[in-house]
Amino acid sequence: MPGKRKLLSGNKIDPKPITGSISITELVDNNLLSYNGGRLREACRLFTEKILQEDVTVGMSLSGALTPAGLGISALIPLIENGFIDWMVSTGANLYHDTHFAIGLSMHRGRFDADDVALRKEGIVRIYDIFFDYDVLISTDDFFREVLKAPEFQREMSSSEMHFLVGKYLSEREKLLGTEKKSLLATAYQYGVPIYTSSPGDSSIGMNVAALALKDNQLKFDVSLDVNESAAIVLEAKRTGGKSAAIILGGGSPKNFLLQTEPHIQEVLGLQEKGYDYFIQLTDARVDTGGLSGATPGEAVSWGKIDPAQLPDSVVCYVDSTIGLPILAAYAMAKHSPRKPKRLFDHRNSLLKKIEAEFREKFGNINLK
Amino acid sequence: MPGKRKLLSGNKIDPKPITGSISITELVDNNLLSYNGGRLREACRLFTEKILQEDVTVGMSLSGALTPAGLGISALIPLIENGFIDWMVSTGANLYHDTHFAIGLSMHRGRFDADDVALRKEGIVRIYDIFFDYDVLISTDDFFREVLKAPEFQREMSSSEMHFLVGKYLSEREKLLGTEKKSLLATAYQYGVPIYTSSPGDSSIGMNVAALALKDNQLKFDVSLDVNESAAIVLEAKRTGGKSAAIILGGGSPKNFLLQTEPHIQEVLGLQEKGYDYFIQLTDARVDTGGLSGATPGEAVSWGKIDPAQLPDSVVCYVDSTIGLPILAAYAMAKHSPRKPKRLFDHRNSLLKKIEAEFREKFGNINLK
Amino acid sequence: MPGKRKLLSGNKIDPKPITGSISITELVDNNLLSYNGGRLREACRLFTEKILQEDVTVGMSLSGALTPAGLGISALIPLIENGFIDWMVSTGANLYHDTHFAIGLSMHRGRFDADDVALRKEGIVRIYDIFFDYDVLISTDDFFREVLKAPEFQREMSSSEMHFLVGKYLSEREKLLGTEKKSLLATAYQYGVPIYTSSPGDSSIGMNVAALALKDNQLKFDVSLDVNESAAIVLEAKRTGGKSAAIILGGGSPKNFLLQTEPHIQEVLGLQEKGYDYFIQLTDARVDTGGLSGATPGEAVSWGKIDPAQLPDSVVCYVDSTIGLPILAAYAMAKHSPRKPKRLFDHRNSLLKKIEAEFREKFGNINLK
Amino acid sequence: MPGKRKLLSGNKIDPKPITGSISITELVDNNLLSYNGGRLREACRLFTEKILQEDVTVGMSLSGALTPAGLGISALIPLIENGFIDWMVSTGANLYHDTHFAIGLSMHRGRFDADDVALRKEGIVRIYDIFFDYDVLISTDDFFREVLKAPEFQREMSSSEMHFLVGKYLSEREKLLGTEKKSLLATAYQYGVPIYTSSPGDSSIGMNVAALALKDNQLKFDVSLDVNESAAIVLEAKRTGGKSAAIILGGGSPKNFLLQTEPHIQEVLGLQEKGYDYFIQLTDARVDTGGLSGATPGEAVSWGKIDPAQLPDSVVCYVDSTIGLPILAAYAMAKHSPRKPKRLFDHRNSLLKKIEAEFREKFGNINLK
Repeated sequence: MPGKRKLLSGNKIDPKPITGSISITELVDNNLLSYNGGRLREACRLFTEKILQEDVTVGMSLSGALTPAGLGISALIPLIENGFIDWMVSTGANLYHDTHFAIGLSMHRGRFDADDVALRKEGIVRIYDIFFDYDVLISTDDFFREVLKAPEFQREMSSSEMHFLVGKYLSEREKLLGTEKKSLLATAYQYGVPIYTSSPGDSSIGMNVAALALKDNQLKFDVSLDVNESAAIVLEAKRTGGKSAAIILGGGSPKNFLLQTEPHIQEVLGLQEKGYDYFIQLTDARVDTGGLSGATPGEAVSWGKIDPAQLPDSVVCYVDSTIGLPILAAYAMAKHSPRKPKRLFDHRNSLLKKIEAEFREKFGNINLK
Repeated sequence: MPGKRKLLSGNKIDPKPITGSISITELVDNNLLSYNGGRLREACRLFTEKILQEDVTVGMSLSGALTPAGLGISALIPLIENGFIDWMVSTGANLYHDTHFAIGLSMHRGRFDADDVALRKEGIVRIYDIFFDYDVLISTDDFFREVLKAPEFQREMSSSEMHFLVGKYLSEREKLLGTEKKSLLATAYQYGVPIYTSSPGDSSIGMNVAALALKDNQLKFDVSLDVNESAAIVLEAKRTGGKSAAIILGGGSPKNFLLQTEPHIQEVLGLQEKGYDYFIQLTDARVDTGGLSGATPGEAVSWGKIDPAQLPDSVVCYVDSTIGLPILAAYAMAKHSPRKPKRLFDHRNSLLKKIEAEFREKFGNINLK
Repeated sequence: MPGKRKLLSGNKIDPKPITGSISITELVDNNLLSYNGGRLREACRLFTEKILQEDVTVGMSLSGALTPAGLGISALIPLIENGFIDWMVSTGANLYHDTHFAIGLSMHRGRFDADDVALRKEGIVRIYDIFFDYDVLISTDDFFREVLKAPEFQREMSSSEMHFLVGKYLSEREKLLGTEKKSLLATAYQYGVPIYTSSPGDSSIGMNVAALALKDNQLKFDVSLDVNESAAIVLEAKRTGGKSAAIILGGGSPKNFLLQTEPHIQEVLGLQEKGYDYFIQLTDARVDTGGLSGATPGEAVSWGKIDPAQLPDSVVCYVDSTIGLPILAAYAMAKHSPRKPKRLFDHRNSLLKKIEAEFREKFGNINLK
Repeated sequence: MPGKRKLLSGNKIDPKPITGSISITELVDNNLLSYNGGRLREACRLFTEKILQEDVTVGMSLSGALTPAGLGISALIPLIENGFIDWMVSTGANLYHDTHFAIGLSMHRGRFDADDVALRKEGIVRIYDIFFDYDVLISTDDFFREVLKAPEFQREMSSSEMHFLVGKYLSEREKLLGTEKKSLLATAYQYGVPIYTSSPGDSSIGMNVAALALKDNQLKFDVSLDVNESAAIVLEAKRTGGKSAAIILGGGSPKNFLLQTEPHIQEVLGLQEKGYDYFIQLTDARVDTGGLSGATPGEAVSWGKIDPAQLPDSVVCYVDSTIGLPILAAYAMAKHSPRKPKRLFDHRNSLLKKIEAEFREKFGNINLK
């Protein structure tokens, strides 16, 4: 423990007064000082000053109904266009609802305290305070089933490839309908950002794949490919002398999948590695109930998920992503020039071969026990 | 329940993309659409478009350690200077810590995960992620005891008067030390904004008053005066054809005290009234554990605290005040010109006489049972 | 940091299977192992094994609407009858609603999702999922106004004395109506347990006192007496070689008031003391938003509120008091025989004289600065 | 809205006092009246009085680190042995950590506030307040890799079959080591309870499968089979005149997967159905941030996940599963005799054929669009 002088060496709490002409970056830098305000400032600065350096591979996980809330269009697409996200892990639901925007279907502001029995009777579906027509689901299901019957889907593939191929269709649909820049999947396709889902069966996308399977469609998810590809991306970042960052929106299975790349490398594949270098989480998950969603960067260190030496470069901000993400995105775009897209999707196969080779080199002649 | 067309008549979820040059008001208006983001937008607009109309009397309650986090300097003082807050209810702690800034003492950014036993040994006091020297407490206690021995404090008074008189001292101290615009109490004094505390004994201010009482100091809190004065302010707003607004930061006893003005008027004094017209709460308090901190505007309607007809003009946003308040303040100052200060402090006595008269007129000849 | 063997020396996670005949104490001891389950077990054991020793003075704070939920009758009254609570700090609301039960008024199970505008129209008041007739408020107000006009109330007094005197009336009313053991105030009166409120104006009790003040009733709250009396109770516990315990239900102003006894002793009165010995909090308050409600025992150590050497005897359990308190009470009564009531109310004056004397001895010849 | 008399017809808040000899069922029935206490009572009674009827098919989802906390041994295994759970959806992590107990590895009580950098150095892994040796992971990984190389795993299968086959090995291992009744997977195997995971790649189990895939092991997850099998289980419950119940511990992807069975049936497969009949959730997930974890039964109605007519038979209790589940289990076992296990695992194929047939009958001659 340092002495009193050191302990009191942090900046004085003495912000400039807020005015009507203050900018977002000034507000963040000068007026978000303590508690979750302080954490949001730290997240903005960690993201902009360290994570967005060229040699950092940025993975982001999405959970919670973010695309229905417009955050795909608002923030995630601009972040990808600026080269600020290199790969993603998402719930299927975020990707399914993303599709609506590209194919011209609409979601609307509603009320969180609506009478759901009446909504059901009227054919309205509710996501908290968002309303949409039940037909939006039916039309989106039709879209997926039509697309997934195409020849290029008649095989086993990783979820990243499946999302890429769907993104291609959506990208064309966007052009046709004049709905450009509405779909995260389409943008990720254009920028070569691989998007994984940790739970491929768990969403309307997975349900449509399963329905088609009952009709002898050949599309299958190669779950192990997802696991190995995602670990390969993280390993490559480190083996080439770069750094890796985890940006976690929410928690849940996508958080676990993003972080498990390191235990996969170290504990399961037996390769030398130390963990993520940078960590930001915006979440409402509580720490004290013991779940992974709320698990701290410290706990992650004990698993090898975060490099112990880098623990100070970890921030958890307890704020709704619908507030925190727009601010983070606006701050980063104001303060940092675009990065050249890494187009990791194009390199999946070579990265996979590299991790496989390193693994075989180490355990080649022995049987995997 | 309206039909499908009506239910889907809310704005489409179709925000503009965030850019590096987006302003705070654009971000709020265009990009905070749903969930707590949506609530924060609604709060910003309700505040700016309805609450800041000239005929609305705006009461604000403070709980949680907001002044230590710099929110007094950042947001509350500018809001008062703009005439956006007419009266306040605060925990004593917020007012006690506010004093440090005026008398030249400092608080510093620290760490929320510090070793508190070591801090104690070093004489460092911690408020979450804020550190300060134990001597800050001692010096502030000295200041209060010195001031509270002055002749003008040698009597019984409402907490609003006590805070006003202390504010006067702080205002002078600020000029002397060049620390202007650092103290909420000093600013409230200058603008005639009465500040009540619902728990006068419950803070270091109250402890110093109590210590002085052991030495025969004559300062006493007239608790009933606080109750009646605060109700008189709300009643006057309505009797003169205006409206009343409650802005609640946090929850707790200050929230209850701000809202109980209406049950005091209706249930206890037996006067005709309908409840607050506008309601905004920024809080982390949960609804489901039944406490008043998390009680909804709806529950408040059942008590007569909020006018049932005005319930749609109520917003609860679950966000840390350290994030929500700076945005609310910046938005309001950007969108609304300053209001003329109502200087309610100067009118306390006449307002009190009016509520007393109305009460006596109704129950004058009968004994209060 | 101890070595691996030591780190892994905690009990193995290997509980007995739950059966249909398991008792509450077995369930707590064997099956609540980790996360908040673990904390609840620790709280039960800390309370029963350490806090209930004869030489420990047990203070409890109440916030949240606990008496409306039946916890007064269920748990708090039995705990007092067993001598397990020595003094209390409560919101006024808990004491006001407590009164209904003694004077024969009823509250009912309702619904948390009721239509509040309709409830208001029907004259039903709601506390989350509890309904009651608006007349319950009116009748209780009548009771208070009738009682508070009695001669013994025509003076200034501490809130503990006011509650004691009201408790006497309620005790008589209970006997008359056959509603014994329904009122916390009545039971506290019978057992000499002083109950303070940190916010005397902030409840319907305070509102009725204030209304009577408009009619020249002479009852006044002596806030400083509350502050000094409560600190005197804690100081006496320590000066006589005993220990002190804080049991906190919820958070808020009552939590602060219970704990500020130590800063009052040390920081403001300048007397030698180290802090509380035992600490239990059942709460839903979050740590990360910086408020006192969620402040940890560690943070309290940095203020001198908890003895640093005793920090391991502190437990925070994040659970609704409506679940945690019944279990804690059942466990303690099953495992510990009743304690002789300390009847601290009867000793208030002598305790107050002792703290005053100690204070004067130290600062007698100098003026309080 | 019913009139006042009806609104006040709920039980009076008038509980029996808690004593040292009160049983768990008495405590639940008499003393958990309001707020989350009330919800826990409602959950206990809904489970015992309605859900445990013979004709109800009970699905349970697990998320959060429940098996490490001992809840597998404590509660889930006894519930299965009593025939109270018919099928499950779990995170992989719960099943991976479950394995430790069967193969003789141990987890220990630790501290949630440990120094994680030091833990990492010592080779200790932490799950909130649970510590275990890093070798526990390595040994468990060895176990999985050894088992998954066996011939019966050399093919594509549903996660339920994979878990069943692993359960068989664990069951044998338990007998060998005398660790019977420690493993949920082993018990589920014995009782024919199918356990699905919604995210097969997302856990150390999935990582070991992926590592083996790099060495040409043939085990693959058939994700669509999981989706169709689970929907078939729910459909069968309803088609045979029975009812279906969802018991949700936590939230996350397992919650979504459990509930999506109904949209899969109705929206995607186009079959006539109305939704789940009974719904219980124990969670810490907040409603207001819009995620599926905290989505209410009402919101589920709008999606067809819950039968609108059955909405009153839905309960959400905001309590840590480490407290709520032991009480729920103890209550149910005390009040309800064991049910005959449905052994749904044995019927998977026939159920699947039935849903497939119904689907083909409806859409047989047309192509799935």
